[in-house]
Amino acid sequence: MSQMRFEIREQPQALDRTLRGQLRQIQRLKKRFETVRPRLVVLAARGTSDNAAQFGRYLIEITTGIPVALAAPSVSTLYHSKLDYRDTLLVAISQSGESTDTNVVLEEGKECGALTLGITNESSSTLARIADETILVRAGKEKSVAATKTYTGQQMAFYLLAWALGADLKLDDLRRIPGWASDALKIESTISARAERFRFMDHAVAIGRGLNYANAFEFALKLMETCYIVAERFSSADLLHGPIAMVGKSFPAFLFTPGGPTWPVMKEMLARLASLQAETLVITDKANQEAPKDAIRLAARLTDLYTPIPYIIPAQLFAATLAEVKGLDPDRPRGLTKVTQTL
Amino acid sequence: MSQMRFEIREQPQALDRTLRGQLRQIQRLKKRFETVRPRLVVLAARGTSDNAAQFGRYLIEITTGIPVALAAPSVSTLYHSKLDYRDTLLVAISQSGESTDTNVVLEEGKECGALTLGITNESSSTLARIADETILVRAGKEKSVAATKTYTGQQMAFYLLAWALGADLKLDDLRRIPGWASDALKIESTISARAERFRFMDHAVAIGRGLNYANAFEFALKLMETCYIVAERFSSADLLHGPIAMVGKSFPAFLFTPGGPTWPVMKEMLARLASLQAETLVITDKANQEAPKDAIRLAARLTDLYTPIPYIIPAQLFAATLAEVKGLDPDRPRGLTKVTQTL
Repeated sequence: MSQMRFEIREQPQALDRTLRGQLRQIQRLKKRFETVRPRLVVLAARGTSDNAAQFGRYLIEITTGIPVALAAPSVSTLYHSKLDYRDTLLVAISQSGESTDTNVVLEEGKECGALTLGITNESSSTLARIADETILVRAGKEKSVAATKTYTGQQMAFYLLAWALGADLKLDDLRRIPGWASDALKIESTISARAERFRFMDHAVAIGRGLNYANAFEFALKLMETCYIVAERFSSADLLHGPIAMVGKSFPAFLFTPGGPTWPVMKEMLARLASLQAETLVITDKANQEAPKDAIRLAARLTDLYTPIPYIIPAQLFAATLAEVKGLDPDRPRGLTKVTQTL
Repeated sequence: MSQMRFEIREQPQALDRTLRGQLRQIQRLKKRFETVRPRLVVLAARGTSDNAAQFGRYLIEITTGIPVALAAPSVSTLYHSKLDYRDTLLVAISQSGESTDTNVVLEEGKECGALTLGITNESSSTLARIADETILVRAGKEKSVAATKTYTGQQMAFYLLAWALGADLKLDDLRRIPGWASDALKIESTISARAERFRFMDHAVAIGRGLNYANAFEFALKLMETCYIVAERFSSADLLHGPIAMVGKSFPAFLFTPGGPTWPVMKEMLARLASLQAETLVITDKANQEAPKDAIRLAARLTDLYTPIPYIIPAQLFAATLAEVKGLDPDRPRGLTKVTQTL
């Protein structure tokens, strides 16, 4: 069994550890934010952590009303511009805490007046040391180059951060997330069977919307790095604004389709893809009864707000299986190392 | 000749019209912003206009120090969240001014306290009517579905907006942009000859950094919508954080490589791609003497700040040529219409 699959399976325990381990910290943070409420949140990250940041951006805007920007690191690292970061919470997200560029963004941002926070898996990392505050992802050491349990751990960290920023989230609901992750793991054999069919796929598009937009990015990244598939990722709206032209008969399309606010537009997207005779695979749960019959369906009944963590798990399993089927090693993708240093 | 190619060639005149037509308007805007300087700029758009927004985001952060966020439209259109837009300039960018979602974002943003500005090609559009302020792109009617002259027109609008926000840009330098666009058009035959080679390409990656990051998105979008190519787009750093694994021998990679702040990292990227035996095509100008000898090189000598408009022109010509070579009609891509309505 690949290390990646092993770590995918560890997620319920890892999520539970992160949640329980950070409760005191986020209660303290909540008090701090009640005194000085940030007017802007800026998120800086690369790779999988950047996809978690994309999730965090939707979550924080939707649940707190505070505007969120994803940092453009080169503005600091290459152009050396000074940004007006008064009343700003600057969050850097990095599994290792040793990403050169996000650490530079954090340090420069601090000089520009931001309160800084690190989300990392490593308590003794550079990031944990230089940030004013830390939310620690307690996923345990991640050995596979393809990140899985740190991604969902970072998603959990964003729920905790949103809670600390005043979001109307209940900690009791967050406590149910590890269980929903377990539910997702129960359909592992179904997913393996479905992945077989895509053995000869060399391109694809992953589609998500709202809180699951980030999952489309993360699914595509997993397909790129573990299966060497040229994987696009779009919101349903962005796909319709041009890229849909490339989608013809049998084009593989993967969709995250929870019930709730995003379902009407995803339903239209599915109809459009059907008219193009694209090959679709849909991830949903029991709460969305309108989703196609052949969807990969989690046994849980989920509200949109809590779908992102359980929904990425079938996608991770799909990528791990497909890599194995293709004879590739998902733990050691060609040309990649666990810590990537860029500016 | 395709309408797309015709409109690509119109760009020097269109840019000149936009610049001259908006001088009074931006002088007025500058005064307004001196009284109430925005602390945050939020940009809302889809498709090509969203790529122009991506350019605007780098330009405004680099030249004014005001943080910029790209709006996530679904936060307003599907989740109906109210964002804290005090002291915020909310800019919607739309060729037609009739994009449903960006107009919804603008109207909701206004209710949340934002000052609103529309960048559009149509003076009598819904966007021009509902926005507090407008910068008009005077590109003339764009008939090709694949946008070209409105993209560079929107880029010009962002230079004007940055100037109005206090950027240290000289209007005399902006006046030279139409001439640089003409220089780019002079190498049309060279580009056509180079595009021939990519006749059988079905996937690719466009790579840019900093101010040319948006051009990578726009080049990829042109390849997707006019040539049905599965075209990825990344910053050099993001490509290294995972997706590089999919790049093998002969993988087509297109790079925007001006001299200046981004050259050192783009140079490393080129070396990495060479080691992978990827098939690279580089767009540069006379000022970057270190760029590869076989680069597509504009005759002008440009500073990084003014490369984005001239650099996208060879990419537009490349896409138009490749579509023709593939026997496709770039003016009427399958399944697309000029105005796309999404939520």
